[in-house]
Amino acid sequence: MTSTIRKKTRIAEILVEALPYIKRFHGETAVIKYGGSVLVDDELKESFAVDITLLKYVGINPIVVHGGGREITRWMQKLGKEPVFLNGLRVTDAETMEITEMVLSGKINSELVSLINRHGGKAVGLSGKDANVFTARKMRPVDNQDLGFVGEIETTDVSLIKTLSDKGYIPVVSSVGESLHGETLNLNADYVAAGIASALQALKLIYLTDVDGIVLDGEVLPEFNLNEAEDLLTHPGITSGMIPKLECCVRAIKDNVSHVHIINGSILHSVLLEIFTDIGIGTKITYTKRTS
Amino acid sequence: MTSTIRKKTRIAEILVEALPYIKRFHGETAVIKYGGSVLVDDELKESFAVDITLLKYVGINPIVVHGGGREITRWMQKLGKEPVFLNGLRVTDAETMEITEMVLSGKINSELVSLINRHGGKAVGLSGKDANVFTARKMRPVDNQDLGFVGEIETTDVSLIKTLSDKGYIPVVSSVGESLHGETLNLNADYVAAGIASALQALKLIYLTDVDGIVLDGEVLPEFNLNEAEDLLTHPGITSGMIPKLECCVRAIKDNVSHVHIINGSILHSVLLEIFTDIGIGTKITYTKRTS
Amino acid sequence: MTSTIRKKTRIAEILVEALPYIKRFHGETAVIKYGGSVLVDDELKESFAVDITLLKYVGINPIVVHGGGREITRWMQKLGKEPVFLNGLRVTDAETMEITEMVLSGKINSELVSLINRHGGKAVGLSGKDANVFTARKMRPVDNQDLGFVGEIETTDVSLIKTLSDKGYIPVVSSVGESLHGETLNLNADYVAAGIASALQALKLIYLTDVDGIVLDGEVLPEFNLNEAEDLLTHPGITSGMIPKLECCVRAIKDNVSHVHIINGSILHSVLLEIFTDIGIGTKITYTKRTS
Amino acid sequence: MTSTIRKKTRIAEILVEALPYIKRFHGETAVIKYGGSVLVDDELKESFAVDITLLKYVGINPIVVHGGGREITRWMQKLGKEPVFLNGLRVTDAETMEITEMVLSGKINSELVSLINRHGGKAVGLSGKDANVFTARKMRPVDNQDLGFVGEIETTDVSLIKTLSDKGYIPVVSSVGESLHGETLNLNADYVAAGIASALQALKLIYLTDVDGIVLDGEVLPEFNLNEAEDLLTHPGITSGMIPKLECCVRAIKDNVSHVHIINGSILHSVLLEIFTDIGIGTKITYTKRTS
Amino acid sequence: MTSTIRKKTRIAEILVEALPYIKRFHGETAVIKYGGSVLVDDELKESFAVDITLLKYVGINPIVVHGGGREITRWMQKLGKEPVFLNGLRVTDAETMEITEMVLSGKINSELVSLINRHGGKAVGLSGKDANVFTARKMRPVDNQDLGFVGEIETTDVSLIKTLSDKGYIPVVSSVGESLHGETLNLNADYVAAGIASALQALKLIYLTDVDGIVLDGEVLPEFNLNEAEDLLTHPGITSGMIPKLECCVRAIKDNVSHVHIINGSILHSVLLEIFTDIGIGTKITYTKRTS
Amino acid sequence: MTSTIRKKTRIAEILVEALPYIKRFHGETAVIKYGGSVLVDDELKESFAVDITLLKYVGINPIVVHGGGREITRWMQKLGKEPVFLNGLRVTDAETMEITEMVLSGKINSELVSLINRHGGKAVGLSGKDANVFTARKMRPVDNQDLGFVGEIETTDVSLIKTLSDKGYIPVVSSVGESLHGETLNLNADYVAAGIASALQALKLIYLTDVDGIVLDGEVLPEFNLNEAEDLLTHPGITSGMIPKLECCVRAIKDNVSHVHIINGSILHSVLLEIFTDIGIGTKITYTKRTS
Repeated sequence: MTSTIRKKTRIAEILVEALPYIKRFHGETAVIKYGGSVLVDDELKESFAVDITLLKYVGINPIVVHGGGREITRWMQKLGKEPVFLNGLRVTDAETMEITEMVLSGKINSELVSLINRHGGKAVGLSGKDANVFTARKMRPVDNQDLGFVGEIETTDVSLIKTLSDKGYIPVVSSVGESLHGETLNLNADYVAAGIASALQALKLIYLTDVDGIVLDGEVLPEFNLNEAEDLLTHPGITSGMIPKLECCVRAIKDNVSHVHIINGSILHSVLLEIFTDIGIGTKITYTKRTS
Repeated sequence: MTSTIRKKTRIAEILVEALPYIKRFHGETAVIKYGGSVLVDDELKESFAVDITLLKYVGINPIVVHGGGREITRWMQKLGKEPVFLNGLRVTDAETMEITEMVLSGKINSELVSLINRHGGKAVGLSGKDANVFTARKMRPVDNQDLGFVGEIETTDVSLIKTLSDKGYIPVVSSVGESLHGETLNLNADYVAAGIASALQALKLIYLTDVDGIVLDGEVLPEFNLNEAEDLLTHPGITSGMIPKLECCVRAIKDNVSHVHIINGSILHSVLLEIFTDIGIGTKITYTKRTS
Repeated sequence: MTSTIRKKTRIAEILVEALPYIKRFHGETAVIKYGGSVLVDDELKESFAVDITLLKYVGINPIVVHGGGREITRWMQKLGKEPVFLNGLRVTDAETMEITEMVLSGKINSELVSLINRHGGKAVGLSGKDANVFTARKMRPVDNQDLGFVGEIETTDVSLIKTLSDKGYIPVVSSVGESLHGETLNLNADYVAAGIASALQALKLIYLTDVDGIVLDGEVLPEFNLNEAEDLLTHPGITSGMIPKLECCVRAIKDNVSHVHIINGSILHSVLLEIFTDIGIGTKITYTKRTS
Repeated sequence: MTSTIRKKTRIAEILVEALPYIKRFHGETAVIKYGGSVLVDDELKESFAVDITLLKYVGINPIVVHGGGREITRWMQKLGKEPVFLNGLRVTDAETMEITEMVLSGKINSELVSLINRHGGKAVGLSGKDANVFTARKMRPVDNQDLGFVGEIETTDVSLIKTLSDKGYIPVVSSVGESLHGETLNLNADYVAAGIASALQALKLIYLTDVDGIVLDGEVLPEFNLNEAEDLLTHPGITSGMIPKLECCVRAIKDNVSHVHIINGSILHSVLLEIFTDIGIGTKITYTKRTS
Repeated sequence: MTSTIRKKTRIAEILVEALPYIKRFHGETAVIKYGGSVLVDDELKESFAVDITLLKYVGINPIVVHGGGREITRWMQKLGKEPVFLNGLRVTDAETMEITEMVLSGKINSELVSLINRHGGKAVGLSGKDANVFTARKMRPVDNQDLGFVGEIETTDVSLIKTLSDKGYIPVVSSVGESLHGETLNLNADYVAAGIASALQALKLIYLTDVDGIVLDGEVLPEFNLNEAEDLLTHPGITSGMIPKLECCVRAIKDNVSHVHIINGSILHSVLLEIFTDIGIGTKITYTKRTS
Repeated sequence: MTSTIRKKTRIAEILVEALPYIKRFHGETAVIKYGGSVLVDDELKESFAVDITLLKYVGINPIVVHGGGREITRWMQKLGKEPVFLNGLRVTDAETMEITEMVLSGKINSELVSLINRHGGKAVGLSGKDANVFTARKMRPVDNQDLGFVGEIETTDVSLIKTLSDKGYIPVVSSVGESLHGETLNLNADYVAAGIASALQALKLIYLTDVDGIVLDGEVLPEFNLNEAEDLLTHPGITSGMIPKLECCVRAIKDNVSHVHIINGSILHSVLLEIFTDIGIGTKITYTKRTS
């Protein structure tokens, strides 16, 4: 009997350990960019859906944003199309755009909504097209080469997202937008997440990636501030793949997001770990370095 | 000058002619099943989007429901799969279901949302998975043959649809649902529309089809009541293709939808014509025959 | 059959033609000064009541303001009193004021409320006395001659008007006010309309008159801006009768009313024509000349 | 000094004496029929306006209803028309109706609204026409003689009155209504008051009259119940002039008004006296005799 | 590094383990009777305050009720009074009642409010006197001996408790009430808790005691239903001290409280353990035996 | 009969005399420091409770603040402790603090709540600990002598008080607070009242004392302004006992309380007299001298 009680007491102690974090983040909004391995590993997906549901139930408002490059490539190939990239951006002709939207809004989004709902959340799938959450414009050619239907965000209107979140729903947003001319555009989900976080004045913007954080000279940087972040943008030790993400972070911090986190989504329950434990994981960027 | 005034006066007179209809339907809900030719003809699509936007602006709350069989077939074929039907129902294996959902939620839904928004409405795309708007169960085998992921509605929870509609949005719902076991299921959009209309106690449920209404002995029946509708279900003069639609109508009327209409969606602005003119078009079914 | 459909389609097309105007003015307020021939012609009254009701139903909030000089004169004469005017202002002794109020609040107002309600609106009659919507002060003598109970607006409190309009009612306001000393005063309805439009930050202020607009050198001026309006005030080509109305327009534009219109109320459905067609009618005054 | 304190203490004691009445009636509605001498005596009018304002400030919601026979007669005579009565009802031809409405809605109503507002209330004048507060039908001929535009209430919709009262306004209602055919009708203010009190489930309905209450055998009856009231209707000792008022009382009590009072309006502050003192004045009718 | 991650992952897993309980009890009310050792042991008090705060943050609404017999006895002795008991009830003379109220409302209540607030809750101390949350009547003499100011609940009005709980506060209620004659009365906190739980239709009523639950033949009974509970009331194996508590449980279950729990408050975090773990602790009583 | 009517009419006249005050103070907040003789005289207590209840019913929102030095001393003596004062402040050791809190929160507060409720108000007892209404810090030693648990207000959060007052309750607040380190502290009720009045932007702050107001050269000063008040602080003619109270007044006026009053609480109904009569009583301090 006593051993059962002891085990249970351990459970209670851990709930109590989470209390300061629940208090601190109560009523706040966290925008979470869902990406990397978590998109393809069933156990990670499941753990992610649980994390998001739990956040909502303890009073934190999660907004999920996702892209889905690998799955787009897989479907293009099934349809006999070979993906072409330019400076890391997918060259997107009309048919590629059709496939992209079907995969993002009709498959990845829908699957994630369904997973969260199965764990008791009330997720609602959206794209930038819904109620014009964001409008976009076509990107300029890169090296004189047209990228096709690749866009960047022009305006953001989060009233639909806010309405749903306030009513207890969990918005799940795919990175598809539309231009004022009615062209469907493929957007970078990192920028979409930063744009929504800024518009909502979110407390936290969390990027789930396949790395442990921002790495400099082989070491994960646990925390730095806006000035340091801007210096890092031109630091030779930063891998070029991290630059666009770092740019998103800098922009979000400038636009009043309090904390941006880059964490490893391949760790089970990485979102909960980041939010509910005292060390946190990955890299954290703030306006001025603090320890909150 | 006077000829301009005269032309303008004609415009005013027509607006005035619409006033009694605007008054009668003000604040009411109309569920519209979008289907048939309207799905493939660009001019019809455009006219449909305008109609829906106009309804919302004059104080009537439209909810749009759609399927999309032809487009599903087209994408299956692009992916090298041949569609199989059984009693008019698509035999839906796992990959077919994937394609079905991508086409319905990621293509047709998204295109319609986008069209309505371009005309000034604030459409939001949904499927039955969002916030569990409806749960479904797999259909029983037909003639001992399993239909795969084909389902029928089990429960309907319209609180998300109602919240969005009350806040000024126009919900656009694709006929994809999910079972309690997490299986994505292909649903019949006619039944989905009837289920939503009943749950919302809608004033009107309108089916856009490729025919002019319910035809008996070569004549379109302009109006009949519930009893007559039930008689027609076994009447030899009714084409078998109409039977399931008629069943939906009967069910909706029994579940407190006031008027069900079957109209020809290939007429431009057919929805406006049905609602805002004194003769109406197509076939109208009510509980007891009236002239409102 | 096809000819009926063609006629109906024409109806739909006109509704669609009105959509951009409905969208643009949705949720906005329009103050309409009801005056001139429309007060005495039964067909014009009826068409005016329909127009106001239609505006309300399609989401625009009309506030009607009226005077009623001719009817006051008629009742004075029935009671054996001869009207006296000074600079176009009615010299108003105590008994004349009694008659004026009875005619404005107990006859014209009441008749208009009744007409609108018969067409399905929910009109509520008010005067400046109700909940002190406006307080007034007696006007100074003109040429050393006392005008009696003629007043000008001192303060405006539109909270009652706003409450009613927000709850779905259509306020109809007669140009009777009261001084702080409890004297009932006869006000100029043009100024009352301008005062209410300013206090409500109305989008539109529309004057129904017996002329086609502001006429200069025999031509109706279709549109001009604030600067031009101020110039016109001293222009010799403007008929002196138009000056007070023009002054109201200038004041309203300065006080944040977006558009002021002077239109011919003797055209059937002139209000609808002004608001719902692309050319508009009469004269339009804005802050800076635009084409919206 | 002490004598001043003593005088002030007396003031405090009287306020305290009123507390139980304020508590008991807090948040309740009282419909007050304003009639008789109070309509013509300036001091009584003033005291009435103060009473109504005070009720509102201490948390009781007054609704005032009035007619105005004598003033109608006075204006008819000024216009050279001789009033005709049939069974105590004014035979009302079209011109009489015009005068009646102008006097009731444009003079008596307006004057009362103004008086209450001058004492700090926020009165709003209404008639049965406003937002169709009540619709009426023409009364049947009496002794084969047509009464003209005399009506009786058919339907009552108190939502406008309730909205205004809830928002802090004091509705003042004149006894003019309209038939479904658009005819303006002269209504009996006693019945209007009873109809509004019933529709609002008022706690109290108070008739201000020129007598001290219901008199039987020369004695004012202080209180009786519904059964007794019905008996009195056929009692020979009741003056015939009281019968219609008594009928109104009986109807109101049956329709869930808690207390009906018939009091002498020629006593200064008669409304306050009735409500805030422990004996009350006049006659009180309740469902079952009680002492509350 | 990995060991830290592993430890953190364990934390996340435990949070996830709590999710089903958080979901099930989200938005529900739990009334907790705080009593026994928890009142005197500092570590237990602290753990109790944390538990209550945590419940509130994860969306469950706790209401705390307490008595405090031992502390009353201690202060009586300090003041030179010897406590007298009759059938387990404290004979309460006027001075004893004064001391009782000061200890309960001015000491135990205040201390608990303070502890919860220090952990981030927003507790508000109440007694039955506040806004007449409950009125009581003096108990009848026992064996012809007057118990003095000992009372039992007569009416309960939880609107104040509900208002505070809905606004995010945690009500903490001491077992002091008042009779209609203004006598302060000493109430049994077990009955107060049951009364409040019934009036709020609470999901759970939890009694913190010094025992492990209801013990029969040396074994703790883990769960039983209403019928079994009623049988136990007369079962010789139940210790007489448990009878009044069991009677409270029976009454609460009959009055629509879903689950009543008797648990050992001397276990750290006993409230969390009861609510957030799958076995629960102590004895659970339900209407019909279930396993939820 | 007429003599009864005359007496009643006098009652009505007095109610009418109070109307201007009711209007002026309608919806405003009055913070009343309950102290001096009123705490010990049963008739005065009763009259105070009636006054507070009446204020609430006529639309003024009272907040009551109290201390209770004499009663604390009485209970200390019963427990064999001799009170020690330093510069008029009670030296408060741990046990004295325990007694102080029990007396203030568990006796005086509770008794006052109960009295008000008996007269029909809905009073709710609070201390500074409830929902952290105010936090305090220990006062510095005076003449190098530690005062123990004596504190001064550091922060004030009136949201709980405002919520209760808005919902119709009457908050009654005892002068007990808590430091951030969890120490219970004895506060000066005069400062607590001033702090709450400032935080609520109260119209009135009323101090009930045992004197007739601020006395200078043997005369009560009826009214003075902020500048004069600051001069008086150093005026030799002011008794030293009045200095702290005068400091509170100055602070409150500076912090946007409109009127501060020092009145004699030993006059029956002194609060009503101050608020509802045209001369007022005691001393009134305002920002600039006015006569409102």
